[in-house]
Amino acid sequence: MTMFASIQDLVQTTPGWIASDGTAGEVILSSRARLARNLTALPFVHRTKKSDLVRIINKVETAVRASATLPHALFFSMPEMSALDRQFLVERRLISPALAEERKECGVFVSPAETAGVMVNEEDHLRIQTIQAGLHLEAVWRAVDRIDTELSHSLDFAFSNDFGYLTACPTNVGTGLRVSVLIHLPGLVLTKNIEPLVRGITQVGLTVRGLYGEGTEALGNLFQISNQRTLGRSEEEIVTTMDRIVRQLIQHERRACEAVLHEAPSQVEDRVWRAYGVLQYARVLTAHDAVNALSSVRLGVSLGIIATIDIPTLNRLVVVTQSAHVQKLTGRALEGDAQEIARADVVRGLLTPSRTPPVRRANDRSNP
Amino acid sequence: MTMFASIQDLVQTTPGWIASDGTAGEVILSSRARLARNLTALPFVHRTKKSDLVRIINKVETAVRASATLPHALFFSMPEMSALDRQFLVERRLISPALAEERKECGVFVSPAETAGVMVNEEDHLRIQTIQAGLHLEAVWRAVDRIDTELSHSLDFAFSNDFGYLTACPTNVGTGLRVSVLIHLPGLVLTKNIEPLVRGITQVGLTVRGLYGEGTEALGNLFQISNQRTLGRSEEEIVTTMDRIVRQLIQHERRACEAVLHEAPSQVEDRVWRAYGVLQYARVLTAHDAVNALSSVRLGVSLGIIATIDIPTLNRLVVVTQSAHVQKLTGRALEGDAQEIARADVVRGLLTPSRTPPVRRANDRSNP
Repeated sequence: MTMFASIQDLVQTTPGWIASDGTAGEVILSSRARLARNLTALPFVHRTKKSDLVRIINKVETAVRASATLPHALFFSMPEMSALDRQFLVERRLISPALAEERKECGVFVSPAETAGVMVNEEDHLRIQTIQAGLHLEAVWRAVDRIDTELSHSLDFAFSNDFGYLTACPTNVGTGLRVSVLIHLPGLVLTKNIEPLVRGITQVGLTVRGLYGEGTEALGNLFQISNQRTLGRSEEEIVTTMDRIVRQLIQHERRACEAVLHEAPSQVEDRVWRAYGVLQYARVLTAHDAVNALSSVRLGVSLGIIATIDIPTLNRLVVVTQSAHVQKLTGRALEGDAQEIARADVVRGLLTPSRTPPVRRANDRSNP
Repeated sequence: MTMFASIQDLVQTTPGWIASDGTAGEVILSSRARLARNLTALPFVHRTKKSDLVRIINKVETAVRASATLPHALFFSMPEMSALDRQFLVERRLISPALAEERKECGVFVSPAETAGVMVNEEDHLRIQTIQAGLHLEAVWRAVDRIDTELSHSLDFAFSNDFGYLTACPTNVGTGLRVSVLIHLPGLVLTKNIEPLVRGITQVGLTVRGLYGEGTEALGNLFQISNQRTLGRSEEEIVTTMDRIVRQLIQHERRACEAVLHEAPSQVEDRVWRAYGVLQYARVLTAHDAVNALSSVRLGVSLGIIATIDIPTLNRLVVVTQSAHVQKLTGRALEGDAQEIARADVVRGLLTPSRTPPVRRANDRSNP
């Protein structure tokens, strides 16, 4: 019998991937890998009847419980959850917006540290995923591969010798592997180099999207970059190519930041410090304002202008300033002004530990 | 022989009227009184030839040096001064914008504490003026009356038994007394009660203007209120009436502030604290931004939202964030971005005295 976890178990904890800043953590918020898998002898999710969907969940649970990596996973069952709680999981990056919309039997298994999970009955029977802070594509790939291997001991995954792993959508056929990074590119946005770069990235077979995946806007200069092709390349090739391109992108971004700082140092410092002031002092704060201020402050940390706030705190703020997080942290449903007031409280609560305002100046940049 | 003072004598000092906050100091920045006087046997300024203008200055100087109140007054001679230094005196509220524009022989005697002064050859031969922080109309009237009496021992003031003191402009005939307050009315502006109130004030014979007198815009919710009529009423009547009306206005303003706070407490706090954040963190700051931020912070002090900044500091900031002050404090002529950067430095220097180095930078000449 599946035990349902409560969102409340997650509200007061910090996702494991936020705890460290990781390699190039000021530019790369997180690296993720996910594998699409389907069980043999059962139709794809969109053609499966309810009793079979429940059977799939039970099969996956058995496999998850028997695995070495996810034996203590929490299970969140979508039909049992409120819209707010589902949104919380989306903001936590544990489920896709698509899963949050589902009315049918589906859900997600999540490791207690929230660094690994298995969505069940989203587009595919299983979407196995792993996440880490910073640029660690090789590591998240190894982690997701390990879980895949562990689950395959008790599950039969649909596989064709011609096509590889079979998936509901042809774009995932083959390895079923998608690796992605969440990357912060304020320098390239400010220098207006972002559009040609996005075009270039698209041409080499990657996709650029906003924070929440397909069709979402790039808020706060945050972009999600992932591989488009899953077929005709080995997993190692996908990971290596992605890693190489992302490292180039990081170099481009760093050069753009230095150029912006060189061109107008006071204007950059002004933007960074005013944003810090907004986070520290606002009493009413929209999600939009928050993500933009966080972007400017992150730029400041990245350029060595601000030294009193660390990347894990910024990552945490990106997560907890989202709408459902503000509401869950405050303990009640909030809209409009009330939510904006609560958001400002949440931010100040996280920033107040260091009370003395930092007064680093441009020419003190000891660690650019 | 008249000794010319240097603006540099004032740059690093704080005007005496700022040093204390005075009665109702959070609403009333300052109370001022001035008397218009002209010497007998000499035509009014606009019809006096240069040699006579010099004679007037010399006569006034003799009287000033012989007075009990102003024996050590500094003299600033307009023809000897740069446009920047004149502007500095306007911002310091020691001379009128009209005097700063003059090309002819004219100037101002200023007490070392800057609480009393005598403009010479502005519209009238003498404009004797006194200033204090807060609401102290009776006190500034007594002070200006004392100086008038002292000067009249050595000067013959033009006086008619029918009209009283004779002045170049008929609006000053009679007592020649103008009393004024610089008042901060954010509550009445926010509640949109300011226009009817200004109309009402005008109907009872007072004039409402912006910070720098006639024709200037009300920046940062700061208004200058003065009596229009100088004839047909005793000095005591003018002062008493003005004091009564200003006290009513303070009550109106306080009620408006309480209403605003009651209606949208978080929005008011947000405005106040964000403004504080701007002052504390901006690296580029326009004069307009500064005066608006100072207005919001003052509102916060007035409402008890902010307790970490005092009224004298706010008054000082209103003075030193003005264009000529920023330049004199920085030690060089600055425009555009450079001035806005220097302004932000000046503000941070005053807000974090212990941590930020003085407004002057290492590469500045110490004595421009």
